[in-house]
Amino acid sequence: MQVIFQPMGVACAADGGESILALAERAGVAIERVCGGRGTCGKCLVRVSGEVSEVTEAERHFLSPQALADGYRLACQARALADLEIVVPDVSRVAEVSILTGGVANDLTLDPWVSRHTLSVPPATLDDPVADWEAVRRLWEQEGLGALRPTLRAMRELPAALRANGGQITLLQVDDEVVRVEPGERVDPLLGIAYDIGTTTVVGYLMDLETGQELSVASELNPQTRYGDDVVSRIQHADEHPQGIETLQRAIVETLGRILIDTTAQIQVQPDDVLAITVVGNTTMQHLLLGISPTYLAQSPYVPAVTRAVNLKAAEIGLEAHPDAHVWVMPSIAGWVGGDTVGLLLATGIYEQDEVALAIDIGTNGEMALGSRQRLITCSAAAGPAFEGAHISCGMRAAQGAIDTVEIDHKVHWTAIGGGMPRGICGSGLVDVIGELLRVGVIDPRGKLVEPGVVETAGYPALAAQIEGENRHRSFAVVSPDEGAEGRPVLLTQRDIRELQLAKGAIRSGIEILMRELGVGADDVRRVYLAGAFGNYVRPESAVAIGMVPHFRRAEMLAVGNAAGSGAKMALLSRTARARAIELLVQVEYLELSGRPDFQEQFAEAMLF
Amino acid sequence: MQVIFQPMGVACAADGGESILALAERAGVAIERVCGGRGTCGKCLVRVSGEVSEVTEAERHFLSPQALADGYRLACQARALADLEIVVPDVSRVAEVSILTGGVANDLTLDPWVSRHTLSVPPATLDDPVADWEAVRRLWEQEGLGALRPTLRAMRELPAALRANGGQITLLQVDDEVVRVEPGERVDPLLGIAYDIGTTTVVGYLMDLETGQELSVASELNPQTRYGDDVVSRIQHADEHPQGIETLQRAIVETLGRILIDTTAQIQVQPDDVLAITVVGNTTMQHLLLGISPTYLAQSPYVPAVTRAVNLKAAEIGLEAHPDAHVWVMPSIAGWVGGDTVGLLLATGIYEQDEVALAIDIGTNGEMALGSRQRLITCSAAAGPAFEGAHISCGMRAAQGAIDTVEIDHKVHWTAIGGGMPRGICGSGLVDVIGELLRVGVIDPRGKLVEPGVVETAGYPALAAQIEGENRHRSFAVVSPDEGAEGRPVLLTQRDIRELQLAKGAIRSGIEILMRELGVGADDVRRVYLAGAFGNYVRPESAVAIGMVPHFRRAEMLAVGNAAGSGAKMALLSRTARARAIELLVQVEYLELSGRPDFQEQFAEAMLF
Repeated sequence: MQVIFQPMGVACAADGGESILALAERAGVAIERVCGGRGTCGKCLVRVSGEVSEVTEAERHFLSPQALADGYRLACQARALADLEIVVPDVSRVAEVSILTGGVANDLTLDPWVSRHTLSVPPATLDDPVADWEAVRRLWEQEGLGALRPTLRAMRELPAALRANGGQITLLQVDDEVVRVEPGERVDPLLGIAYDIGTTTVVGYLMDLETGQELSVASELNPQTRYGDDVVSRIQHADEHPQGIETLQRAIVETLGRILIDTTAQIQVQPDDVLAITVVGNTTMQHLLLGISPTYLAQSPYVPAVTRAVNLKAAEIGLEAHPDAHVWVMPSIAGWVGGDTVGLLLATGIYEQDEVALAIDIGTNGEMALGSRQRLITCSAAAGPAFEGAHISCGMRAAQGAIDTVEIDHKVHWTAIGGGMPRGICGSGLVDVIGELLRVGVIDPRGKLVEPGVVETAGYPALAAQIEGENRHRSFAVVSPDEGAEGRPVLLTQRDIRELQLAKGAIRSGIEILMRELGVGADDVRRVYLAGAFGNYVRPESAVAIGMVPHFRRAEMLAVGNAAGSGAKMALLSRTARARAIELLVQVEYLELSGRPDFQEQFAEAMLF
Repeated sequence: MQVIFQPMGVACAADGGESILALAERAGVAIERVCGGRGTCGKCLVRVSGEVSEVTEAERHFLSPQALADGYRLACQARALADLEIVVPDVSRVAEVSILTGGVANDLTLDPWVSRHTLSVPPATLDDPVADWEAVRRLWEQEGLGALRPTLRAMRELPAALRANGGQITLLQVDDEVVRVEPGERVDPLLGIAYDIGTTTVVGYLMDLETGQELSVASELNPQTRYGDDVVSRIQHADEHPQGIETLQRAIVETLGRILIDTTAQIQVQPDDVLAITVVGNTTMQHLLLGISPTYLAQSPYVPAVTRAVNLKAAEIGLEAHPDAHVWVMPSIAGWVGGDTVGLLLATGIYEQDEVALAIDIGTNGEMALGSRQRLITCSAAAGPAFEGAHISCGMRAAQGAIDTVEIDHKVHWTAIGGGMPRGICGSGLVDVIGELLRVGVIDPRGKLVEPGVVETAGYPALAAQIEGENRHRSFAVVSPDEGAEGRPVLLTQRDIRELQLAKGAIRSGIEILMRELGVGADDVRRVYLAGAFGNYVRPESAVAIGMVPHFRRAEMLAVGNAAGSGAKMALLSRTARARAIELLVQVEYLELSGRPDFQEQFAEAMLF
């Protein structure tokens, strides 16, 4: 039996009975699955042609009858029974950005911080009763390997290892420490894991440090969501509960441990084999991982406790990896411009380019950087969660059933993720629909839904019919009840438009103030990097249409996906990248918007369309 | 009420009802007490003049009626009821060698590795939203304090400390790490503890790192004795039992923890306040503390796993001190010349003297070093435990009731520790009695007890009458039954003499081979340092009489007590001393006696008197 995954065109032999998810893993096709393949997240949506096992309860829960009829299944549930062709939709693909994609010419020379040294140590004699570690040191120094610094655990491993295989041993070194001693010559791959701790999702990439290859990937929901959906509510939880920080810290560390078990199990190695670990996250996520109080991040002047890169051992934060594995936490720039932004800078290479570029990562917060190698300025704009579907009446995340693209001529044309009937609208759909409604005049430049009569007069009778209510209670039916899932319409309300105006206004004012500070205009910007899931899905022309970003007429727009994760991988694979991240703290300027007298004025203006 | 301690002449006011041990502690008089004052070791013997509480069960157990009648009491049991004069006999005094005593002109400049820095950090503002640690770093660098490297725990402490006292904080630095951050200006003493892990006894000295003062001291029996009295039986235990090393390691670490609690409680501070820790011990004790297999120390060619100084954090070995307290384990020279010998070299300063000196530490093993700053050679001689009273028919440790000095004219004159009737003979008494019997001809130069007739003819009828039995079963009654405790004699058997011959022969051959190797004769040696409890009590002339050491006619003989412990204190108080200990590993040569073709011949000769 053969299974082909599209659009990758990757084929894989199957015995029959295996889940599509397992086959995808074997074929090296990364499919999203927050729940780890337990059928509880509904993320691993695929479209199947060919014979597979019967629809399960879990699938009925997540997929509409229409979607099922169209061949959509959950990869963790459906099992191959014959030759198959599987289409993996964008939404199910792990947002994976190869370091060199997205037009980023940021060459990475592999220069990992783990190395392997095999030595043949001659036995001690009565004439030369040299201590075990001194015997190793002689050879070590002969080979020009620098200072030999074994950890206590490595010290303990040597005597037996030395005598198990006639004096031949393999030493594993991380940075300047020997952390493992094994008998004989070992050639197992050198492994590291790069973690991206998002406020919502945590991803771990298991990497082969010698080839730079991604060996496996796993993700989970950030378990801290149970203590608050957003960063501020987690800070409040930490402040208001005894042991609040410890609880949040333990939760995230346990998740990192599970992801380590998952990624290592996928390639049949042990968590103990992973000796190098990098972590990126926003400043609050990084503080919580380290068990450092995030209290003052939420109070003016919003200062972090620590911004420099933190070097730790896994045991220090209780991470169940090799206790002496080195953990390197990405430096942060400011309280609201964290290691994830440094990862974005690292991945885009904006700091070493001659031409001016803009990089934006849009989530609950919008972090952005503008500049070139001459000067680079960052800031954070409190966009709020509108782009993630929160505070929007029919808003939802970019999941099955979400309207993700909208085009309007004389009527509304939409697509929904996973096919089937739409259940709501996600960030990219929201930007699309508002952009299009602005173009045809259903929304006026101040953001007001105009009267149906005016719309009809303008030549759009069908659209006019979709407007209901008055003034602040007016709404536009993107999808009518008979087209919507469970007979419900997808509405865009006047209030939704105001929410989006606040969000895009924050982003836009950030960009404007950065441009003003740097002394450049929109035409000076030659590249715009859009990071994050939202950046990957939003159509640049719609972002311009709603005025979220200026019209960069001479700029290339590039979606760079999970750039923070790419930065974490780079730091794992290259000492140079790690050193660059540290240098960035000196090179990059930070602008605190709330300290700018021109911010309010700029913001008021930027809220208009 | 007033209590005076003699021979120190230290006075102390008493309220009445306090134990003499408690009063002694208050007065700064260090009294031995292996059991920690629980009345179970009998070590805290004192002689009391004045009214004290009634004799306890514990005292009846350890003291003879005669001793009690003479005013001997246990300091932990007897409570002051009126003005007292207390005589603390040598045997009860904690073998305390001030670093500068014993004729050792080894100046120590205080240069501890813990320091305290108070900074006033200006608050962050919106115009300068500097991260907490970066704000500290600015001042730190302004003050020329070098690189700022906080531990994770210190990182966690800063945010709250910074805001608790208007930005004034005190940072505690150990080596190159900031390990504690406290609000305000703190002036508590900087504390460290120096541990001496003996095979039998473990001592901890709590030191004020700024004044070099010893603040308190506590000791316990080495709990590993329950797994074997000597080093070799502990190595066997570690080898033969699953988790053997872990068991031995945990036992010693728990003891170190209790000693820390004890010494800190004595001066009303917390164990957490102690940030610097040094440890000396023989190579096996140091391996077991570190949890490193000692297996190969007991097998030719007797190599250690580690000889260099080991730097650790308390948490790494599970020691319940401040988890980030730095633990520095003294370097070792060889499998049987350990950190205790390096401590001896450090304390005597032999390595920097122009004239040739010999340093010997005699316990179960005899470690010795001969040389000067030009060349210094060490070796270890397996003396066996005869000097500690083991394998000797009436042998015992230097405790209450042990004969510790013997002189002979026409009859035997002896003294016993603590007065009262003698129960046995300890190492120094054994050396004395054999030396004296040799002098008067009761023992011949080959070590044979001669026939009573010959002794009588030589003019010693009383001594002749004390000889009994024939040949290998012959013995000499040092104390007759009616003089001995419980009506038993203290006998010296032919076998005892053979045991002593083996022991002193080992020491003597070591010395001879060192002299030969260095190319010096006995007259070239200008100083002889005798370390350890045995070295403190044995009379040099007796050691010469039995041929344990050559007759060093031009040498000063110096008893230096617990020189290993002194070395540990020096390393705690001075970075320079620590650096010297490390340099010693390069400077000092090690001679493996079992690898010398001339050893057996030398040993056979050295066994003769």
